[in-house]
Amino acid sequence: MSNRAESFLVGLVGDGVMPSLTPYMHEREGDVQGLRYLYRPIDLIELGLPGQAVGELLSGARSLGFNGLNITHPCKQLVLDYLDEVSADARRLGAVNTVVIRDGRFIGHNTDFSGFAAALASGLPGAALDRVVQLGAGGAGSAVAYALLTAGVRELDLVDTDAARCAARAAELAGFFPDRTVTARTTAELPQLMPRADGLVHCTPVGMAAHPGVPLDMSLVESRHWVADIVYRPIETELVRAARAKGCDVLDGGRMAVGQAADAFRIFTGREPDADRMRSHFLELVAAEEVAA
Amino acid sequence: MSNRAESFLVGLVGDGVMPSLTPYMHEREGDVQGLRYLYRPIDLIELGLPGQAVGELLSGARSLGFNGLNITHPCKQLVLDYLDEVSADARRLGAVNTVVIRDGRFIGHNTDFSGFAAALASGLPGAALDRVVQLGAGGAGSAVAYALLTAGVRELDLVDTDAARCAARAAELAGFFPDRTVTARTTAELPQLMPRADGLVHCTPVGMAAHPGVPLDMSLVESRHWVADIVYRPIETELVRAARAKGCDVLDGGRMAVGQAADAFRIFTGREPDADRMRSHFLELVAAEEVAA
Repeated sequence: MSNRAESFLVGLVGDGVMPSLTPYMHEREGDVQGLRYLYRPIDLIELGLPGQAVGELLSGARSLGFNGLNITHPCKQLVLDYLDEVSADARRLGAVNTVVIRDGRFIGHNTDFSGFAAALASGLPGAALDRVVQLGAGGAGSAVAYALLTAGVRELDLVDTDAARCAARAAELAGFFPDRTVTARTTAELPQLMPRADGLVHCTPVGMAAHPGVPLDMSLVESRHWVADIVYRPIETELVRAARAKGCDVLDGGRMAVGQAADAFRIFTGREPDADRMRSHFLELVAAEEVAA
Repeated sequence: MSNRAESFLVGLVGDGVMPSLTPYMHEREGDVQGLRYLYRPIDLIELGLPGQAVGELLSGARSLGFNGLNITHPCKQLVLDYLDEVSADARRLGAVNTVVIRDGRFIGHNTDFSGFAAALASGLPGAALDRVVQLGAGGAGSAVAYALLTAGVRELDLVDTDAARCAARAAELAGFFPDRTVTARTTAELPQLMPRADGLVHCTPVGMAAHPGVPLDMSLVESRHWVADIVYRPIETELVRAARAKGCDVLDGGRMAVGQAADAFRIFTGREPDADRMRSHFLELVAAEEVAA
């Protein structure tokens, strides 16, 4: 980069963010685009700060020349109190994961939702979206469900072990998309739901190193289903592997991780990222990590 | 740089720092050394903050992953209240221009003094240091006088239009260097002082664009004198030009600017900067600026 190249300073605020690969994805895309780009993880646990500190961190970041911050657990809802402006989608989701600082103002976006939408479009082009079963209706699950409905899913069956949360989310989403059907379901209903579904989306922690296994009885998955996982550590979850073995079209969790990072990069810099290049970088980073582990 | 190269985030806190060349000097040396380096000017005037805000900015910088901050007017003294540790030289000078953040602690240094010392050694090697006349005893002047005495000057004549300030500084410096002579003088005494001096050091604003002219009657300067200026905008001050025309050995103000930046780079990164390379970069930056002006 030239010495007076445009420079970008961003960060990621949340609990336990030190191992995140997002900083490296941004920095590398910035490097390739000839920008001076520095992305700092800001770990509330290491700092001994509560989620409420996000407001103070935003103010500090503004004074100290940050261009924006990504926001993760436990601050995605808390941060709303400190923003000057929020995108319509982020406001509906009640969650912000990207704050751009422009002319001293804080503007919130949600690239979890848009990142999953981009992942779906690029990773499963032409997938049938008539009827989808989604496992998991937590924070990430809400963003994914919103993206699915935005992408055109007509009937969404939402399955969560917390029945009350599941019902609340389903009702809320149905309110935003009055011409679609969003239904809260239980795991026990999966044998009836899967035969009618075009695809399955997985948004629980099952498959992460700390939660091994698959999130449903794999005999319910047929080769005609497409399967999307949002877990990306490991990138090849048991679900992804088993679905591939059955011949399903598969979207791994890295696609959403890259999608959210690419959208945040665009919001922070005003420049178009190369999502394919970011995905290659991401896969390299994951491979290096998996070799090291 | 490689994507996982060590990265450094630093800033400069003070009034009117946006035009500073220090960020570019650091970033370029970092680039050459293969580091990811980002240096943000943090302008208190633009932020509408008083000098006292330096404590809050330091705390914010620590939380947000800064490796350190340079500090300039009006915070060089104020910052002392917020530091966990201060170098012996900075404590004596009562002024800190470089704070490194290490393991959450703030450690203060003064590279104005050390930068001038390095500039003197590299730019005027072997200069006679027996007796020196210094014009200007303000903040920068104090650091320069301290550097001169550290470098071995035996008799220092300190000239300032503010007689009380001049006397106080002379007394203080004499206390730190009991085997040297530091005397407060007036401009009227220059015709007696210059014939006995080896060299002249200039630490007032005269020669900057807003204060054109030379700071003393040039007929007092002889070819056997060395002449050091700390003004570096323009790099070729009227004093520098006139002294060169007389055949004097000359140290321009850029040497101190580069010296302080090189020392701060070393403190922030733990890596040895190439001061000659930084000087070349600096001269390029100044030349570009003077062409643009």
